[in-house]
Amino acid sequence: MTYCLGIVTKFGLVMACDSRTNAGYDQVNICRKMHTFVQPGERVFVILSSGSLSCTQSVITLLRRDFDKGEGLAKANSMYDAARILGAEVRKVGDMDRPSLERDDYKFNVHLLLGGQVKGEAPSLFLIYPQGNPLQATTESPYLQIGETKYGRPILDRGIQFESTPLEEAAKYALLSLDSTMKSNVTVGPPIDLLAYENDDMVITHQRRFGADDPDLNKIRTRWQQALRQAVSRLPTIRLSDSQTKVKPEDSIQLVESSAPAEAQPELQSQQENKSR
Amino acid sequence: MTYCLGIVTKFGLVMACDSRTNAGYDQVNICRKMHTFVQPGERVFVILSSGSLSCTQSVITLLRRDFDKGEGLAKANSMYDAARILGAEVRKVGDMDRPSLERDDYKFNVHLLLGGQVKGEAPSLFLIYPQGNPLQATTESPYLQIGETKYGRPILDRGIQFESTPLEEAAKYALLSLDSTMKSNVTVGPPIDLLAYENDDMVITHQRRFGADDPDLNKIRTRWQQALRQAVSRLPTIRLSDSQTKVKPEDSIQLVESSAPAEAQPELQSQQENKSR
Repeated sequence: MTYCLGIVTKFGLVMACDSRTNAGYDQVNICRKMHTFVQPGERVFVILSSGSLSCTQSVITLLRRDFDKGEGLAKANSMYDAARILGAEVRKVGDMDRPSLERDDYKFNVHLLLGGQVKGEAPSLFLIYPQGNPLQATTESPYLQIGETKYGRPILDRGIQFESTPLEEAAKYALLSLDSTMKSNVTVGPPIDLLAYENDDMVITHQRRFGADDPDLNKIRTRWQQALRQAVSRLPTIRLSDSQTKVKPEDSIQLVESSAPAEAQPELQSQQENKSR
Repeated sequence: MTYCLGIVTKFGLVMACDSRTNAGYDQVNICRKMHTFVQPGERVFVILSSGSLSCTQSVITLLRRDFDKGEGLAKANSMYDAARILGAEVRKVGDMDRPSLERDDYKFNVHLLLGGQVKGEAPSLFLIYPQGNPLQATTESPYLQIGETKYGRPILDRGIQFESTPLEEAAKYALLSLDSTMKSNVTVGPPIDLLAYENDDMVITHQRRFGADDPDLNKIRTRWQQALRQAVSRLPTIRLSDSQTKVKPEDSIQLVESSAPAEAQPELQSQQENKSR
């Protein structure tokens, strides 16, 4: 399985993905799912891929071949054009491989995320479907996901705002989204590729691979686990009625302010008390 | 869509579900998915259902008819036997409805959760598949879900431990798991049914329905949203290298301790201001 994620805000782009690939349950490998195509000062494209590795490899190989000849993405004059170039390549590989795959009941399941910037435009983010059609992220829906998308979505729904989320904060949410997915689905795993692109950089300056033993990755995962549990414990407490005598349903399960002692983060405590009625 | 959840710990059971049902996107209704069968002091069963409402209704109707005659669940001498009785009923309805459904390309997709206690045993929790076979929750995997399961899973993976999670805490995690699912999938929605069963109660004493406007439900949802964002802001901060000159990948995206000052909200604000360039 795979989990890839792109976020676009008014400050730039964050792209992130895992690197685990599996054919069945017993053939698990590592492969890079993040691919960059850069003409410094002119065009920056970051592509994340999910689906049958043989098919996504073909798409990337053909894109790279054209790009290196100064064709294809190397000539894209807008992000929309670039998304259409990816779509055309997906369709080309589909034409080659779909009939044989479908004869054996395999789906042609290539999904791509394309983030980047073409000179003269703002950065933008697209999802390209297996049918080749592109979907663009919007200010209201500023992130797109492919692969194993659900486990990592709730935390993004809480935190990502196009207008207000700084790039560093978006990168942190991306790591947490990947962490949630890795925790709930073992077929998504490190290394984690993370890339942050600031508006108008027109080159790639912030890109890092976090291996399974990376101390920074492990630190944020451990701290997040602790922080989540603390956050839960600071919420109002549920109180179950003591009596087995008939009580009103709303009294049988009550929500009461927790009497958490003032400790490590006293300001959080006092803020909660101010808000409670 | 539906989301149902059962948790078993050494202190008892928590069962929770939403109440939204939809046929297509334009026919959305409310229906109860939590069903209880109780012989005080002898047997307590709580059933949650997901799948085609017409089929789950049939299963519950037939179970109820037998129970009211003193048959079926009314005679189950163990939770395993009860799970097998549910499985047999699922198969019976399958025999009636599968051929016609499958002729029109509908799947017979009845899933049930069964939690409860039979006198002389500890409480236990089962999932009954559309094929009628039962799966039991274990001390290592102390919760089971049916329906739209993925959004609500990460928070459970963090918090639920068979040996140590008190029933009140498990109930809180159940509400948060439902909240995550409702936030990411609009076809899962209130009212929320929540039931907590303490070991050896042998009746149902803690059961509550939270409507969409329930102040307690809204309070925990709002507070959770705030707590999550605060938890993120307290994690180590991501720092992107300032320079566009070539730096080592691990320096281009660094994890640094956030210098969180005393106040919760202002600190978040100032932290963001520091970051914007």
